[in-house]
This record gives sequence, structure tokens and C-alpha cells, in this order.
Amino acid sequence: MQKQVEYSDAIKTKYPEQVVIAIAKDKNGKANPITLGWTMIVSGSPPMMAIAVAKTHYSIEAVTHSKCFTIAFPSSEMAEAALFFGSKSGRDTDKFAEFDCETVPAKTIDSVLLADAVANFECTLESQTPAGDHIIFIGKIVSSHINTESKKRLYTVGPGHKLDSAS
Amino acid sequence: MQKQVEYSDAIKTKYPEQVVIAIAKDKNGKANPITLGWTMIVSGSPPMMAIAVAKTHYSIEAVTHSKCFTIAFPSSEMAEAALFFGSKSGRDTDKFAEFDCETVPAKTIDSVLLADAVANFECTLESQTPAGDHIIFIGKIVSSHINTESKKRLYTVGPGHKLDSAS
Repeated sequence: MQKQVEYSDAIKTKYPEQVVIAIAKDKNGKANPITLGWTMIVSGSPPMMAIAVAKTHYSIEAVTHSKCFTIAFPSSEMAEAALFFGSKSGRDTDKFAEFDCETVPAKTIDSVLLADAVANFECTLESQTPAGDHIIFIGKIVSSHINTESKKRLYTVGPGHKLDSAS
Repeated sequence: MQKQVEYSDAIKTKYPEQVVIAIAKDKNGKANPITLGWTMIVSGSPPMMAIAVAKTHYSIEAVTHSKCFTIAFPSSEMAEAALFFGSKSGRDTDKFAEFDCETVPAKTIDSVLLADAVANFECTLESQTPAGDHIIFIGKIVSSHINTESKKRLYTVGPGHKLDSAS
């Protein structure tokens, strides 16, 4: 049976929620990672993915500048990196300089991959559209990579940025 | 270490992927449910969610007609309903007439809620944007509901529409 409640209560039922780390270079060439839960696949042919980024976040400038971005699926071992990249701003922090997280150059776009992620997807920016307090960036996937070792994806499993594998 | 692979191989690392059932009434007033994995929250204030629907699907017509839709989080007990709603077309099937799944009227929009779902969100269509072979519908959440019993969300946990709770 359903009962009507405030959205803030109802949305607590969303967990586990997938986590990605999106990476785009800013106008100075600094690769800026941001941790996001609001992401989805949006097309099968061609393969495309979307991310929703808060309008106030520095990643808006970086993606708008470089017109491409990486979407990495962090592994369950990367919770600390995900928390760091999600809690600092690229406006005043070089996140990859301050947190030890190995990167490798992307193959097709001007960005980087996360060496220890479960998978990395290189995206060219196809379009963007506003939605409330966020902007949705839609990317076409032009290269895909997986880890040579089998790893589990990272999820937010409960309120308060509680991160873990989903099972 | 990363190795470059085909997208179709890399995307196999996405599981578990959340499942929602989106419901919109068509021009004849028939409520049409469709099971979707491609969905995300897109705004916090106001709360908004997006769904990506294949351009060929009947739900495009229903959402475009009614300009509102429900997003239900099915429970882990609703795998059969999710499979049925995801494999039939509303063009030639009255899905709620053919599959026993209790509905209740929505409170604010002209749609229905799923009585046994973990949660239901009533959305008014704010905008839409094409993305490859899908259309992204962006909805503003105007009412939220949760189940009076504690239930687990349903996820796709592996290839071949393997549905279960995530843990």
C-alpha cells in the first residue's frame, strides 16, 4: 500500500545508486574529476551516456570548454577517491595532484582514464540541456576500456555518502 | 590496468542497474507501463527525474500525449511484472489488463501508481531532448509515495534481463 510523503523521504528508497567519476580538462589543461550518481545510458546505437552536473560545479566549465569527457565506473576499492573527488572543487584544487589515483591518457579524446576503474568510456559532447539546478550533458561514446582484472562497481548504498559494492 | 574493448563488452560491467516502471496514459486513457533501466535523478531543487525511451516505443506517444508520467521503483518481488511490461508493446496490448498488477490513481497527475512498488513519483513533463535512438523525457516531481511496508528495489543484476534485489 502506498502513502504520500515528502520527496526527501521517498527518495531515500533509491539505494544502491551507481557511482561514476566524470573527468574533463579545463582551459588550463588540468584534468578535473567529479563523482556523480546521476548518470544513465541514453542510446544503444550509437552508444551514448548522460550525466547531470550541478550548475554551480566547476565541471560545467571544464566540460563546456573541452567538449568531451570520460565516464569511469570506479571499483569498490575506490571509495576514498570517489569521496575526495566528490567533495572538493576543481576551482581551487588540482584533485589528481592532491589524491593518489593513477590515470592514463585517453585514446580518442583529450582526457584521462582511471587505471584502477572497472571500466572507462570516452565521450564526445553531443548536446546539453538544463534541468532544474543541473545541466544534463549527453556524450557519444567513442572508445571503451575495461580493467584487465575483474572488479566490482562502486555504489552509494545508503544516505551520508555510504559507499560500497552493491552485493 | 585498462584495455580497450568494444563498447558491447565494456558495458557488461554496468550491473546491477536500477529498474523503474514508467507509466503514462495514451490518448484513449489507457495507462501504459514500460520497464526502463535508463533513468536518473537530474535536479534536487526542484526535484526532477529523467527517463530515456526508445524512439520506436509506444510510450513515446503516451508521454507526449499526456505530458505527465509516473516513475515507480518496483520491488524485488515484482520481477515478473517488470519483465512483462518491458517485453510487450502498448500498441497492441493493454498491459495492466493482461498482467495482474495492482494500481491506484495518482494524486496530482492523470496516471496511476503501482500499489506494491517501493516508491512512486508523479512527474509533469518539463522538457524532452533526443539522444541517438532514444528520447530523454525530463519530469518535475509533483507528488511522492512510498510503500507502507519495507521492500527492496529491483535491479537488473546481469545480462539477459536477470532481475533481483541488488544484495
